[in-house]
Amino acid sequence: MKFHVVTLFPEMFDGPITSSIIGRAVSNGIIEIEFVNPREFTTDKHRSVDAPPYGGGPGMVMMAPPLAKAVDSINDQYGTGHGPKTILMSPQGIPMNHKIANDLSDFAATTLVCGHYEGVDERFIEEYVDLEISVGDFVMTGGEIPAMAVIDSVTRLLPGALGSADSTISESFSVASGGMLEGPVYTRPLEFHGRRAPEVLLNGNRQEVEQYRKRVAAERTMARRPDLIRGWGPDPEDGDLNSP
Amino acid sequence: MKFHVVTLFPEMFDGPITSSIIGRAVSNGIIEIEFVNPREFTTDKHRSVDAPPYGGGPGMVMMAPPLAKAVDSINDQYGTGHGPKTILMSPQGIPMNHKIANDLSDFAATTLVCGHYEGVDERFIEEYVDLEISVGDFVMTGGEIPAMAVIDSVTRLLPGALGSADSTISESFSVASGGMLEGPVYTRPLEFHGRRAPEVLLNGNRQEVEQYRKRVAAERTMARRPDLIRGWGPDPEDGDLNSP
Repeated sequence: MKFHVVTLFPEMFDGPITSSIIGRAVSNGIIEIEFVNPREFTTDKHRSVDAPPYGGGPGMVMMAPPLAKAVDSINDQYGTGHGPKTILMSPQGIPMNHKIANDLSDFAATTLVCGHYEGVDERFIEEYVDLEISVGDFVMTGGEIPAMAVIDSVTRLLPGALGSADSTISESFSVASGGMLEGPVYTRPLEFHGRRAPEVLLNGNRQEVEQYRKRVAAERTMARRPDLIRGWGPDPEDGDLNSP
Repeated sequence: MKFHVVTLFPEMFDGPITSSIIGRAVSNGIIEIEFVNPREFTTDKHRSVDAPPYGGGPGMVMMAPPLAKAVDSINDQYGTGHGPKTILMSPQGIPMNHKIANDLSDFAATTLVCGHYEGVDERFIEEYVDLEISVGDFVMTGGEIPAMAVIDSVTRLLPGALGSADSTISESFSVASGGMLEGPVYTRPLEFHGRRAPEVLLNGNRQEVEQYRKRVAAERTMARRPDLIRGWGPDPEDGDLNSP
């Protein structure tokens, strides 16, 4: 799978895309990451990519033309109408979730646009962006770290990206998007600072272990994220990239 | 402000902490980032940091002792009872938000623990962790990218971290956590691919601009994130680090 990343700061990705699972997936050819810098598509002598907002106010807004030309340069590689989905990392987007990661993992390519988090000219979004994704209700410098989160979460769903020991984890975890949080987990040593692991996990009765895990997962979810159980919060169908 | 980051993959942070706003804040001494690798606190010849979960199942669980010793080594620098708050990046945590970023920016130091996202032994969490923070209902390889998100969002709230042009943005944006999404923004050129910026932003009437912005922000929030308006979703008071 190919990720096209539109960013003013490609060097921010140096560590994340050479380490751990993502690094291995790049080395193995499971994913490819290509950077496009909107600054290369500026025409003025200052190579401006942003300007003050119309109507006044603090901060700078990323101008539409350099971003548009950057995305055009990607889409041109695919032929008219065959460009990848274009996703803008934005605090105004819908919250990233496991379903979006799953949908993206089915595509051959995806374009991730990292804007200043202060804002991107709306006309670029209207014309070029298929989906705006957020990773939470807080301010970041730009979309680069959120884009890394998307690349990480999609990559680990791709065949061969994970070692065999981990390969089924993503399935067990997918409940986090539509269902519940996972409950507590324990491993050796049996006793840590006077605390013993729960007996039910040690006696080997598979059915009891399952019942215990379901119960503590439900208790934790009710305590911490009742929105996941009651269907509150953003609709899990939001961000359906396969809908027209 | 000092960030202590407990991670098996400190090299993942190379790009993010040397670029852009975070890189500048490190150079200027506004923040300091120190890495502690739990692998340095292992005692067996394989230097194991994880093991299969009690009760069976896929994946590996991070063992409590190496993590505990890593956090102890940080807290020892501060004296008994004066160690920084310890935050675990975890998909089971409460969603990161602007209020948590604000609270953290008031502390002199914070410890961020990056676990495998599959799991960390619950007994370590019970004894050492003050708060578990999530950046969304999706699976990632580990807590490293979420920790970068926290460092970024906290750093830009620190005095002097942002240039003067950007310095008030965080305030205007803080509505995203307790209030509403920002509405669309526009900048030059006046016309882009046949689309003109809204007239109301160009005629210079400050009051009309404000009314327009409030209206489109409310419309967008109702359309995309009604949970923010209606008080659905996680309680914004969750994750109050100043409560007992």
